[in-house]
Amino acid sequence: MARLKGFEKLTSVDEALRIYFETVKPKRLGAVMVPLREALNRVVAQDIIAEKDLPSFNRSAVDGYAVKATDTTNATQFNPKTLQITSKETIRKGEAKTIWTGKPLPNGADAVVMLEHVKRLDHKIKVETQVTPGENVSKKGEDIQKGQVAVKDGTRLKPQHLGLLAALEYSLISVVEKPRIAILATGNELVELGKKPKTNQIIDTNCLVLSTMCQELGAEPVNLGISKDDENEIGSKIKQGLEKAHMVLTTGGTSTGESDLVPLVISKLGEPGIIVHGIAMRPGMPTALALVNAKPVVVLSGNPVAAMIGFEVFVRPMVLSMLGVKNEQRHVVKAKLIRRVAGALGRKVFLRVLVSFKDDEFFAEPIRVTGSGMLSTMTKANGYVVIPENREGLEEGEMVLAHLFDSVKMEE
Amino acid sequence: MARLKGFEKLTSVDEALRIYFETVKPKRLGAVMVPLREALNRVVAQDIIAEKDLPSFNRSAVDGYAVKATDTTNATQFNPKTLQITSKETIRKGEAKTIWTGKPLPNGADAVVMLEHVKRLDHKIKVETQVTPGENVSKKGEDIQKGQVAVKDGTRLKPQHLGLLAALEYSLISVVEKPRIAILATGNELVELGKKPKTNQIIDTNCLVLSTMCQELGAEPVNLGISKDDENEIGSKIKQGLEKAHMVLTTGGTSTGESDLVPLVISKLGEPGIIVHGIAMRPGMPTALALVNAKPVVVLSGNPVAAMIGFEVFVRPMVLSMLGVKNEQRHVVKAKLIRRVAGALGRKVFLRVLVSFKDDEFFAEPIRVTGSGMLSTMTKANGYVVIPENREGLEEGEMVLAHLFDSVKMEE
Repeated sequence: MARLKGFEKLTSVDEALRIYFETVKPKRLGAVMVPLREALNRVVAQDIIAEKDLPSFNRSAVDGYAVKATDTTNATQFNPKTLQITSKETIRKGEAKTIWTGKPLPNGADAVVMLEHVKRLDHKIKVETQVTPGENVSKKGEDIQKGQVAVKDGTRLKPQHLGLLAALEYSLISVVEKPRIAILATGNELVELGKKPKTNQIIDTNCLVLSTMCQELGAEPVNLGISKDDENEIGSKIKQGLEKAHMVLTTGGTSTGESDLVPLVISKLGEPGIIVHGIAMRPGMPTALALVNAKPVVVLSGNPVAAMIGFEVFVRPMVLSMLGVKNEQRHVVKAKLIRRVAGALGRKVFLRVLVSFKDDEFFAEPIRVTGSGMLSTMTKANGYVVIPENREGLEEGEMVLAHLFDSVKMEE
Repeated sequence: MARLKGFEKLTSVDEALRIYFETVKPKRLGAVMVPLREALNRVVAQDIIAEKDLPSFNRSAVDGYAVKATDTTNATQFNPKTLQITSKETIRKGEAKTIWTGKPLPNGADAVVMLEHVKRLDHKIKVETQVTPGENVSKKGEDIQKGQVAVKDGTRLKPQHLGLLAALEYSLISVVEKPRIAILATGNELVELGKKPKTNQIIDTNCLVLSTMCQELGAEPVNLGISKDDENEIGSKIKQGLEKAHMVLTTGGTSTGESDLVPLVISKLGEPGIIVHGIAMRPGMPTALALVNAKPVVVLSGNPVAAMIGFEVFVRPMVLSMLGVKNEQRHVVKAKLIRRVAGALGRKVFLRVLVSFKDDEFFAEPIRVTGSGMLSTMTKANGYVVIPENREGLEEGEMVLAHLFDSVKMEE
C-alpha cells in the first residue's frame, strides 16, 4: 500500500466538490419544534406564514394629535385651524385627541398631526399644517399582511426575525435539527488537552478547533477523542461516529505513505468508501472525501491549518446543506493586496491575509508563512484569499476578494 | 412636564456618544477563569504568554525522508545520491529514515527530502535533489517562541485562538466576565410572548430582540419583563435591573409628551440621571442616555426598529467597552447604491439596505419604508448605511459603506 511517490493524480477543488456533492446528495435534516426564545441562529424548516395583520390595528406613527384629515384642509402657520381637544373614545368633526407613537388611532380619526405642527392652547389646538387621510398612521397590515410569508424557509434566525415572529405570536417555531458532526483525531503523538505531553508528544488541537467551527455553523460536535495510528482503533471509532452522528470528520493519518491509515480503514468500512483522495489545493492536499453507510466522512489533514481550510472548503458547505441554509457565505470584501504573493500553478492556494480598513479603503496583507502547519498564522489573519490554479501569483496592488473569518482591523 | 412641542434641542449622534462615554467612563469588567473548551467568543482578560516553544521539537513539514543535508549536495535527477534506509533512532552519514508530516526529526538529521524527489529501491533511496540544512523542517519555536504573546489582551476567542491556546497547554483561560444587561419593556399596550393579545394590545418584541442582540455580543441578558406606563412600577423594575446587572435598557415611554415617563422616572432614581434626551437621528430620535448609581441606562424607543438602531449605536459600543474588546465592528463592505434616497438634513439617518454581490461587485438596495416601526423592513435588510447630517440624500450609483448584520446575498 505504500504509495511512496505522493498522489498520482490530484483532483481540483471544484471537481472534488462537484463529485462529492453528487455522490453524497446531502439532504436537509428533519424539523424540530423549539421555543422562539431559544431559536437564535437556528434555521427555519418551512415558510412561516403571517396568521394576522401587522400592525393588527391602525396606529400612530408619531407623537401628536389624532384628527379627521378634512378638519385640517388648507391649514398653515398663518391660517391655523382650531380643534377642540377631547378625551372621548371617538373623535368627531372639529375635535382632536392626544396620541403617542404606536398607540391605536381613536375611532373617527384618519390622520395624525405631529406635535411640531401644532400650537397647544388650554383645551384647544391650532393646527398649522394640512394632513391627508392616512398621514402619520401605520395602517393595519402595513408591516405584513395576513397570509404573507413572514420568514422564508431556510432562513437563519437573527434577532430581527425573532422579533417579527414574536409579533406574529409564534412562541414555538419549526427549525431544522442540528447536524451532529463526529470528530476524531488520529496520531500516536497526540495527547488530549489537560494531559501533560511527554517528549515528542503534542496536544491535539484539531478536535477543539473543528468542534467550535461546527458550533459556529449551528451544528453539534460529537467528540470521538483521539485514536492511535491503529487500524482497529480508528475503524471502531469511525463506526461509533457513523452511528451517533450525521457526518464524521477525522484528522491525521492521511498522507501518502505508511501513515496513510485513515483512508485505508475507511475503504473497508462500507461502500462507496473513499471518493476523492488528494486534492490540488494548498494547504490541504492530502484531504480525502468519503461516503460510508450513506454518511459523509471527511478525512482532514492532521496539520491544524490544513484541517481548518479543509473544513472551510468541504465540511462547511455540507453542513449548510444539511441545515438547508441558502445563501450563507463568509462575509467577503474587496481589498487591495499590499504585497506580491506566489501561487502554485495547478493548485488552488488559500492565502491567509490580515484585512484592514483605512482611509475608506480595504487592504489585504498576506501573512508570511514559513510552515503551513502554524496555528499562529491563523490567529494573525482574519481572512483568506483564494489564488486560482492558473495564476502564478497575485500582484501587489491587485484587488482581491477576501473571505473573512474574524473582524476587519479598523485603522485610524 | 408635558413638553408638547417636541425636543427643544436634539444632540447629534457623535456628540451624544462623546458625552455619554465621557460621563459613564466604562471600565472593563473583571476576569473569570473558564475551561478553554467553553471559551468560544469570550474575550481574553490579559495577554496570554507562550510558556513553551511551538512546535516543541523539530518536526517534518512534509512526507519524505529525514537526511543529513550534506549527504544530498549536488544531487539531481541525473546525478542522484544513494542513501541507506535505517530504522534506528539516530541516523548517520549516508543514511535516511522515512518520516511523515508533523513527526519529530530523528537525531542526526537536519533536513527532509520530499517523497516526490526520491526514487525508492529496496533498502535504499536515490535522492534526486539537493536539500539545505533545515529544509522541510518546522523548527522548534518556529510557530511561536516561549515568552512571546500568543493571544493579545482583549482578543475575542475564535476557533483558531482556541487551537493555539490548546497547543500551549492552556486548559483554563482568564476571560472577561459577561456583561449582564437588564432589559425592561414599558407600555400599557404590551403583552408577553405566549399570551394572547386583546384588541389594541400587541406582543412585546423588544425584549426578545434586544436579549438576542446582547447574546450575539457575548453579554448575558437579564429579563425584567414588561411594565405598565406607571411611574412606580417602572421605577422599581429599573432599580431591580440596576441591582442585578451592569447596565439597564428600557424600551418605550420616551416620547416627548404625557408618555415621557421613563426619562422622568430615571431622573428621580439617582445622579446624574438623564444625560442626553433627544438625538438627531432617524430612527431613534427619542432615545435617552442616562447614568444611575454609576451604571449606564439606555432608554430606547418603543418602536422596534428604532430600538434596534439605538442598540447598535449606543449599547453595542458600551457593551464592547465593558468586555474590553478592541477593534470589533460590524463587517462593512463598499457597495453601489442602486437607487437615490432622501436623507434628513441635520439628522443622521440609518438607512436599511439589502446588500448583494453580483459580477464581482457589491450593490446596496434601500429597503422601501413607509413606517419606521416595521420589523419586516429589518428582516428584508441585511445591513444599514449611514446618511450623514449634512447630506440631503444619497445618489443612485454612489459608493456607500454598508454595515452588515446578516449575510450578503450572493447572486449568480
